[in-house]
Amino acid sequence: MATIDDVLAKIDANQTAALDRLFSLLSIPSVSTDPARAADCLRAADWLVGELKGLGFEISRRETDGKPMVVGHAKGARRDAPHVLFYGHYDVQPAEPLELWEKPPFEPRLVDAPTGQRIVGRGACDDKGQLMTFVEACRAFRETGGLPCDVSVLFEGEEEIGSPSLPGFMAKNAKELKADVMLVCDTAMWDRATPAITTMLRGLLYEEVILRGANRDLHSGLFGGAAINPIRVLSRILADLHDENGAVTLPGFYEGVDELPEEIAAQWRELDFNEEAFLADVGLSAPAGEKGRSVLEMIWSRPTCEINGIVGGFTGEGSKTVLPAEARAKVSFRLVGRQNPDKISQSFRDFVEERLPADVKAEFIGHASSPAISVATKSEALRRARRALESEWSKPALLIGSGGSIPIVGAFKRELNMDALLIGFSLDDDRAHSPNEKYERSSFHKGARSWARILAALAA
Amino acid sequence: MATIDDVLAKIDANQTAALDRLFSLLSIPSVSTDPARAADCLRAADWLVGELKGLGFEISRRETDGKPMVVGHAKGARRDAPHVLFYGHYDVQPAEPLELWEKPPFEPRLVDAPTGQRIVGRGACDDKGQLMTFVEACRAFRETGGLPCDVSVLFEGEEEIGSPSLPGFMAKNAKELKADVMLVCDTAMWDRATPAITTMLRGLLYEEVILRGANRDLHSGLFGGAAINPIRVLSRILADLHDENGAVTLPGFYEGVDELPEEIAAQWRELDFNEEAFLADVGLSAPAGEKGRSVLEMIWSRPTCEINGIVGGFTGEGSKTVLPAEARAKVSFRLVGRQNPDKISQSFRDFVEERLPADVKAEFIGHASSPAISVATKSEALRRARRALESEWSKPALLIGSGGSIPIVGAFKRELNMDALLIGFSLDDDRAHSPNEKYERSSFHKGARSWARILAALAA
Repeated sequence: MATIDDVLAKIDANQTAALDRLFSLLSIPSVSTDPARAADCLRAADWLVGELKGLGFEISRRETDGKPMVVGHAKGARRDAPHVLFYGHYDVQPAEPLELWEKPPFEPRLVDAPTGQRIVGRGACDDKGQLMTFVEACRAFRETGGLPCDVSVLFEGEEEIGSPSLPGFMAKNAKELKADVMLVCDTAMWDRATPAITTMLRGLLYEEVILRGANRDLHSGLFGGAAINPIRVLSRILADLHDENGAVTLPGFYEGVDELPEEIAAQWRELDFNEEAFLADVGLSAPAGEKGRSVLEMIWSRPTCEINGIVGGFTGEGSKTVLPAEARAKVSFRLVGRQNPDKISQSFRDFVEERLPADVKAEFIGHASSPAISVATKSEALRRARRALESEWSKPALLIGSGGSIPIVGAFKRELNMDALLIGFSLDDDRAHSPNEKYERSSFHKGARSWARILAALAA
Repeated sequence: MATIDDVLAKIDANQTAALDRLFSLLSIPSVSTDPARAADCLRAADWLVGELKGLGFEISRRETDGKPMVVGHAKGARRDAPHVLFYGHYDVQPAEPLELWEKPPFEPRLVDAPTGQRIVGRGACDDKGQLMTFVEACRAFRETGGLPCDVSVLFEGEEEIGSPSLPGFMAKNAKELKADVMLVCDTAMWDRATPAITTMLRGLLYEEVILRGANRDLHSGLFGGAAINPIRVLSRILADLHDENGAVTLPGFYEGVDELPEEIAAQWRELDFNEEAFLADVGLSAPAGEKGRSVLEMIWSRPTCEINGIVGGFTGEGSKTVLPAEARAKVSFRLVGRQNPDKISQSFRDFVEERLPADVKAEFIGHASSPAISVATKSEALRRARRALESEWSKPALLIGSGGSIPIVGAFKRELNMDALLIGFSLDDDRAHSPNEKYERSSFHKGARSWARILAALAA
């Protein structure tokens, strides 16, 4: 049987072809939220089926009410080794605003930067680039004799829209999906040189509210003063969502939010996290969250309320004296601890309704709802994975939190009692969800090497 | 010389051809605020030049830094009669949102309604239909022997964007534009059966504010809580613009705003204005302006602050967990009395700046700025025009206010000491600035007849 060094050498030798494979996947605009991209989502799913079939997986596209899942299985050399299930998602965020991209978002390319080459394109990092690090590790094993343990994969196409089809699919296919450890590659490194395992993830509640007043847009001269303006009403409501200390004012919002345990707080204090540099990188200087909290708390362990989008009235160039009939906003909440997304959704809707003046009606659309997640920090799998990461990066892997949300991790814990290892290689400046998203070529290369070492370590 | 009955008979006989002429003008999408429609604005100007040339006017397109003016002159039979200058505008508001139009906005058509036929299309009322009532009156005189008095016309193409080129053009061409009376057809009737002369017009200040935070759109999971959200800042500022009684909170805003003189207040109380019906027509039930004011005060004699548009972040279908770098709003103020638009612009900008947290910068764009206008109510010309309107409509013409703004009227008073007669035939339900804008066919027909009577009365 091949040694781990053989496998790593194969990954090194495969780099050019590996990039070509990733670029094929990146060039498919699989934007799950956009109905016009439905066929592209299917293409991305089929691409993965083809790719993994070539690696010896028994794999197929599995239909759901939404985007299909891709599920596959391959046997490994050691039957007594733990069986892993790798999860990733083939859907991406919308690329808008397109005018801010230096090159078209679905024409991936390599760009030279002072810190090395970068892969640029929508999904380069989130999650196609990350997902392919694992696939390339599997390829290297395959090409040097075979996988060290049983590997299953689950790729979904609705992660960016809150994974609506996942609970039903899991319930129906629980036995098939059950494994010993779940592996996820959708998180960040601590920094360019330091690997990390994410053990706390915030949940997400995403709501849209539409306020309607008059039965049509009005002339602000002829009706201004007398007719209610839904933008004004919406502004007032959105302004009320935070108090002067940056805390969220929804009744009951902080139920289930605990103070950080002292042991974790102490560990975070020891991280050499530079608040100034973190903010300066995106052009900011002052933390904007709850007063008296550190930036790491704000983004890892405290809940938030953000207005993700707002629109109403005339938004074109120039001026139009319209008094609009409608205004809408998208509002999302990052959740922590035992915050209950259903209760907070209700609290938000009540909050809006209570503030509506005469003649204004509200409509609500729920886009996503998932609670926060904590991963066990003392498991044998985690211990082995940390060691494997340290071998690759020559630095200990840190245990960190993440402000993002990966709902599936909670679902697998609840439904199948599977613990997850959240290991990813993105960097804070990867512009996930933003124009000119990128993934470091080193993340892609050493990410694949890391997974090879982790699989070997788990099977050892 | 022909009698007024001959002229009126000619207008009646011309109706079908008159509609064809109006439809030609309505089919030109002369949207002044849209750079892509610049050539269409020129086409509309040229169309008017051709039309008036055919009526014996010495007329031409006159270039400005913006859209051209159209200026023409024609001699009348009576040299001792007052010389009138008619003002109208050939530009129109944007037609968006297009999906709310039953038919394309620039394909004008006649529609049957219980109250009679309607002309439907962008500009049908504001101001192409109104403007053409005067042109058709001139045609009828021309075809029955000639105009009764000297007539000049001034058509501009920037009324809907605040007439930026007008002050300079007036200053340069003061002598040519000077006349005895200015006539404007851009206002409303009291109701379907009752003509009106508008003697109070609100001014307009139109500002755009753009707030910028981070140097790019951010992932709300990775940065939410720590990074400032410009939509949240903007919402708070916009919410602060009104107090709980509906009054505008800008410092100094009400300087120069007088209580309505008792004589006018008494006259307005006698108008059979139905607040409930006025609001019900647009789907509303409660007046939304300053507490303790009547709806007529709110729309005619009180200043307002309206948010005409707002946009920021992700506004497409579905969800995107973005924390946006930018948010913008268009905010306009209707002004009355001696309110100073420059001072209020400064007050607004200070108000915004004072409320900006660290890391948020504001940019401002001024789109329009004009003070309120009052027209003399005791002139001989007004007396004659009222009589002429009464002859046509068999009801006395009311003296009313209007919430809209026609900046040129103030400019002509200030610069050339010309009083204006604001006489128009639109109705409150004409949907000016809204989808499916219309003009009653009876307004178009009897409007032309009204102008014929007014010209004859002024020249008598």
